[in-house]
Parts: sequence; C-alpha cells; structure tokens
Amino acid sequence: MLKDFQSHISKNFPELLKNKFLLACSGGLDSVLLSYLCKQNHMDFILAHCNFRLRGADSNGDEDFVKELGHRLGKPVYVTHFDTMGYVNNHNVSVQMAARDLRYHWFKGLMEEHAIEYLVTAHHADDNLETFLINLSRGTGIEGLTGIPETSNQIRRPLLKFTRQRILEYAQECNLEWREDESNSDTKYLRNKIRLEIVPKLKELHPTFMDNFERTLGYLKETREISKSELKRVKRELFKTDGQHWKISISELKKLQPIEGYLHGLFQEYGFTQWNDILLLLDALSGKTIYAENYVLLKNRNHLILGKNEGEEQEEFEIQEGVIQIQQPIGLEIKQVSEKKDNQGNIIYVDKNTLKFPLTVRKWKEGDYFYPLGMQGKKKLSKYFKDEKLDLFAKKEQWLLCSNDEVVWVIGRRADDRFKVKDTTKQILSIAIQ
Amino acid sequence: MLKDFQSHISKNFPELLKNKFLLACSGGLDSVLLSYLCKQNHMDFILAHCNFRLRGADSNGDEDFVKELGHRLGKPVYVTHFDTMGYVNNHNVSVQMAARDLRYHWFKGLMEEHAIEYLVTAHHADDNLETFLINLSRGTGIEGLTGIPETSNQIRRPLLKFTRQRILEYAQECNLEWREDESNSDTKYLRNKIRLEIVPKLKELHPTFMDNFERTLGYLKETREISKSELKRVKRELFKTDGQHWKISISELKKLQPIEGYLHGLFQEYGFTQWNDILLLLDALSGKTIYAENYVLLKNRNHLILGKNEGEEQEEFEIQEGVIQIQQPIGLEIKQVSEKKDNQGNIIYVDKNTLKFPLTVRKWKEGDYFYPLGMQGKKKLSKYFKDEKLDLFAKKEQWLLCSNDEVVWVIGRRADDRFKVKDTTKQILSIAIQ
Repeated sequence: MLKDFQSHISKNFPELLKNKFLLACSGGLDSVLLSYLCKQNHMDFILAHCNFRLRGADSNGDEDFVKELGHRLGKPVYVTHFDTMGYVNNHNVSVQMAARDLRYHWFKGLMEEHAIEYLVTAHHADDNLETFLINLSRGTGIEGLTGIPETSNQIRRPLLKFTRQRILEYAQECNLEWREDESNSDTKYLRNKIRLEIVPKLKELHPTFMDNFERTLGYLKETREISKSELKRVKRELFKTDGQHWKISISELKKLQPIEGYLHGLFQEYGFTQWNDILLLLDALSGKTIYAENYVLLKNRNHLILGKNEGEEQEEFEIQEGVIQIQQPIGLEIKQVSEKKDNQGNIIYVDKNTLKFPLTVRKWKEGDYFYPLGMQGKKKLSKYFKDEKLDLFAKKEQWLLCSNDEVVWVIGRRADDRFKVKDTTKQILSIAIQ
Repeated sequence: MLKDFQSHISKNFPELLKNKFLLACSGGLDSVLLSYLCKQNHMDFILAHCNFRLRGADSNGDEDFVKELGHRLGKPVYVTHFDTMGYVNNHNVSVQMAARDLRYHWFKGLMEEHAIEYLVTAHHADDNLETFLINLSRGTGIEGLTGIPETSNQIRRPLLKFTRQRILEYAQECNLEWREDESNSDTKYLRNKIRLEIVPKLKELHPTFMDNFERTLGYLKETREISKSELKRVKRELFKTDGQHWKISISELKKLQPIEGYLHGLFQEYGFTQWNDILLLLDALSGKTIYAENYVLLKNRNHLILGKNEGEEQEEFEIQEGVIQIQQPIGLEIKQVSEKKDNQGNIIYVDKNTLKFPLTVRKWKEGDYFYPLGMQGKKKLSKYFKDEKLDLFAKKEQWLLCSNDEVVWVIGRRADDRFKVKDTTKQILSIAIQ
C-alpha cells in the first residue's frame, strides 16, 4: 500500500510534498495509518488531536496515545480539550455538529498560528459509502450521494481512494497499534450498523463493488455539475436584479420542465425547502408571500420578487422642533414658509400648530391609518398600499412622517388631511424630500 | 390498501378506468394482488401469462394457477409458451434478456390483436430499491439509480408506490393464494440476496426508509432532467449538421466543465462509452478516428466530425458500352463528341479506345492509385486525398470511375493521365456529372 500511497500523493497531492500540513489524528486506525504513511513518505506535518471529553478515561487514553505516537514519529502533537456537551447545550446542536464546529474552529486557528495551509484528514472509501447509505436512509438529493471530495478548500483527503479493508490489512502488516473508538452517538451507531451489517453484504454482490462505487460517484458528480451549469444559466437569464431584489418572470419559470426540479434547484440556496409552496405561489393571488429564514419570496402580479427577509424594523427617528434638516433615515428639509403652494410628491405644506413635536419618521405597521388629503374619512394604510399596488418590498421601504404617532405624510406619496394648511393657519411649514 | 389503491388509480391512472388493459400475471404475489385489486376496483382487463418453460412442472403449475385465477375473477386469460432456452442459444443473450424480449413481443401482439392500449405490470417500490442496489453494485450513472417509471409509453405500474410489505400484508388479510417463484437465475439470486439480507437492514436505519427512498428518487429524477436540458442546449449550440454529419468545434467543447461529464453526456447516445478516448481525441492529430458500433468520430483539425459508421461498401456499378446515362450511384452522362475541350471539375474528356468496358463506378479502397492528369508518375489515392485535405467522410463518399479497375476519374476532382485525349485519339468521350 505504501507504494500506491506514494504515487497517489505525487500525482494528486503534490502540494503536500512541498508544504508542511496539519494531520487530524484521533488515534483510530485510519488516522494512525495515515500518520504512519506520511512519515514513511518523508512528509512534513504536525499532528492535531481533539479531546472532546465525551468518553471520560477513554478520551484521555486517546490523547495519551496520540502524544506517544507523535513522539515515536518525531512529529509535534498539538492537543486541545473541549467542553463538547457545554457547546451542545449552549448552541442547541447535536453532539456531532458540536464536535465538528469545535474541531474545525480549532484547526483553523492552529493553521493560522503555524502558517499552515493544508489540513489532512483520514477519510477513506468506506466512509463515503457509509455516508451514501446514511443519506439514502434519510432521503437525499444528488449532493448527499456524491460523497465527500478529495480536495475542498484547504482540506485534503489522500486516503479517500483506499478501502477500510486495505487500510486494516496494511496496518496489521506493519504491526501498528491504534485506539478503538467506543463512542456510541447516533451517527456512530448508524455507521457501525452499516459497516458491520450492510456493507459486507453489499460487497458480496459484486467482486469489484468498491471500484464500481467509486465510478458511480464519478458519474453522479458529472451529472451534478452539468445540472448546476444549467441552473446557473437559467438564473442568469431569469433573475433580474435591481441590486436589492430579484424579479423573476412567472411565465418564464413555468416554461421550465420539470418545474418542481427547477424551483428546487433555483431557490434552495436562499433557504426555501418547500418548493411545493413555491409552485403554488406561481398561481396564487398577487401579494402572497412565503418566507425562508433569511429570504422572502413575493408574488407580484406576473413576477416573483425575491428579497432579503430583514425582519421588522421598529426604529423611529425623531425630529425635534427647530430642526431644519435630517439625513437619516431619509433626507428631509423642514422650513417655515410664508406662503403655501400645492403639495407635490416630494413636498408638502402643513399647519405647524397642528403638529406635536418631536415628529417621528418610522416604517408602516399593521393597523396604521390616515386621512388622505382631499378625501373624506380615514383609510387604512394597508388598503391605501393595495390600491396603489405597492408590493411587499415597497411597503417595507415606505417611510411615514408622524406627529404623536398620527400619520402626517406617507412620505413621497400622500399627505394627511388633518394637518393641511387652512385659512386659519398662522405658521406654514414646508417639508420636502431632499 | 384497497382505498389507497383506488384513489391512486383515480388520481394518477384515470386512463385505466376508461380503457380495457392487459395485466401481466406471473402468478406470484405481486401480480396476483394487482389482479385482485383491479377486480375489486371494477376495472376492465384481461390477464396474460407467459410460460417460459424454464422450471418444468413448476412452470406448468404457474400456468394452471393463473388460468384458475382468471376463472375466479371472471377475466379472460391468455397464455403462451416460449422455448426460452432455444431463444437464448439462437440469440446469444441472457435468460433474463430472452424472457424480456419474448414477453414484450408477445404482449405487443396481444395488445394489437385486442386493440388494447395499456399494459399493466405489478412492479412495486421494493423492486425499485432492489434495482437501485443491483445497479449500484455494478457501477452506474444517475439513470441506473432513478428507478423504473410509473408510466412509460404504453406501460403502467400502479403498484410502484406500494412496498412489498404492504402488498404482502394485504394479500394475507384477503386470504389470497399465490405461487412462489423458485427460479434461481443470476439476477434472481442477486435480488433474493438483496431482498432477504440487505433491504431489511437498510429499512432498520430509518423508520420511514421507503418514503425517504421515494423522495430521493424524485430528487434524482429532477437532477437528471435538468442535466438533460443542459445537454440538449449544448448540443443545439455546438452540433452543427449538414444533414449527414455533425461538426463540433473542439475549442467550444473544451470550454465545458467538467469536460468528461459533458463528453459522456453528449456522446453516449451515439454509442461511445469510452469518453476518455474522446477526451484524448480532442488533442490528437488531425485524422484520428474512434469508432462506436454505429457511429464514428473523427478529428479534423479544429473540429470533431460525427457521422454514421456505414461499414465498408463494396458495391460496384457497371457502365456497359453504349450506355449514355446512369443515375446510380451518381448521375453521369457519357457522350461521344467530336472535339475535346478542357477538363473541368464536373466533366472530363477521354480516349475511348483506352477504355475497357464495362466501366465501373465504385468507392475508394486501400491501395488504389492513379496517374493524376498532367503529372509525372503515379500517386496513391490516400496520398492524393491527404494533399487535398479530404476528411474521412469525404473520402468515404468519393466515387471513382474505373476501367479494368484502373482509375479513370476521381469523379469531380481529377482525371487520370493514362486515358487522356491525345493527338492520335480517334474517338473522344465526354463524361460529365449531372
């Protein structure tokens, strides 16, 4: 195996021959063998071991083992201890996720500290098959079946082409010692079940099962990439942006077949996972929206509008009496004038004595109403926006000028009747958008 | 299960409620239950049973069983007997392939005879999972993982959403009887192993494993279709055809990433499976070709030329003395003329007395040579073609006019010096392309 490993490294990972790297070593079979192979191949590396303190004395035994291994190989060993369960409780994540977050965060720091560019892990071919089967059992798309890559950003996985069987045989041949991981997390349990009960049976189905599996992964990756190219192209053509939102023609979307697949592919990166909802949105009433964690998708007549889901901004900006200009959140100029002219979209005239300072500038909220200038009676802002055909995003961006929380001006659109200049008005203020 | 079946039929197979169909019934659990469900749902169908005569008395037992089933259900039963092993030996195919060919051929005839449009089979969800695992064990692309469709052409598979477990439970609940298939072909052996040893373990991995698997198939189908759209688009853009061949720009091909995936996707429908060879062809010397069963791919400077691999045509066409016009294989007119003019591309003048009738028109073959008019000495046709930069397809299409198998005219290109009109010539023939 050493020769195969050496030629595999020369051919596919030459960067690991020229640079010092970090080797993540748990003390288990795979990472011990990898450390040993790298040493035999005269590579320059340091070992990094995480003690997750999940298995008491066993965890400490692993740590001692890796320190001893480093000593024997003549390589430095860096060790850290984590309060993994504390992280689980604080962040409400699984043990597996916690271990992953903690590990990679620490590796990253260590690499920066030592100016090391590559992290090497001991994943092997059976890991990929096990992951394939775990994901299959849970239901997955092509991403979940294509396995982990040999190379991703700074991570290198030079054992990925080798089977566990081969690794085990070579480790035994070399009389290596390693630690057995006795942990029993859910995933570990699943993996063990797959490893012990399913994979051996699968391998009996075909004499070159693992080679065939590697070929399958290759084909699936190709299909995945081709499908990604198509989605990218469609996105380039259909997603028109004004820098803030994307506007997507519904009739163009409907031409795509199979539409569910395209909706899934186009919107999943924005966090939308219920693409059936998106499908229904295409034929929903204008104004209907669906929400993902960070994005919102709105049907607006013939288009879908995709934008950030900013949450509700409740900020209010005050304008004290005497202030003649504000910049935030919108540029306004307030002047005392001697004569009223007609209101325009960007300027209104009000009776100063009807106002109660400080005025406020804020966004619209549910329940707001006003008395549109020149109309009888009051009107809900939601109704006004609807009549004006404002879409969700326009509504969200609409500022209101208020006095005592009553709407004086739907800024840039319509003034309120209650504050208008009358014959009895003594002091006229002009308020203009800058 | 009956209710689920009924609503599934109403929703997804309304055509089976309105039309009589053929139900393929082996006598095994799945097809017996399907027959029973269709009867309970008051559907109009006839049973078709194939006796492949592969298991002696057992095969005949199955046949009798299905006849009896038809009698009990009040449905006609059509039975046929096949000499399956004879077909295997005559056609050099596997037993499985033979059974498949024979079965579908017979079904087709039966359907035509009875003016029946749909064939209904009893494939179920576990069949899809087993096929998935068989293909996985052999190595496969996304096609091999997406399962058989519920609907393809005239075939309908209304049990495809139901698991074997559910089918078995309902059959037991209804006290149905069925025949156990004791056959032991290779695939049967594989399927049995998967069914008995692997699938139960897989299902233990997740409480809703089969539902998740169905979802996975759905996602994979979507990805497959999106990838197909992309390949179709690329093909539309890159494959330029003159009606006979496709010309594909190598520099455009090279822009596609991942190129292996694209080459695979673009050329597999023409029977090219070694796309690594196609990859090498891109940088090969001009003139290099690779062959699939029915197509050939040629590198011709900056392009790949894709065409049919017609095999070698050895046909010769004779022109008897006195014939003044032929249509096949190419339109030629032979006239006696009193005066020689200059040869042109589409007309030559020869000394009739140098010719030996019948003349022949044939394709070029290896070893052919001629004496190009106006040149000293002879030249191999292969060399001439090369100098003229004829590609493989142009060479294949080039007709030669011969006398006593000596080249008189590389038709439309160059006459031979040996047959030219000299001062001593008594009878001049003009030979012209029409």
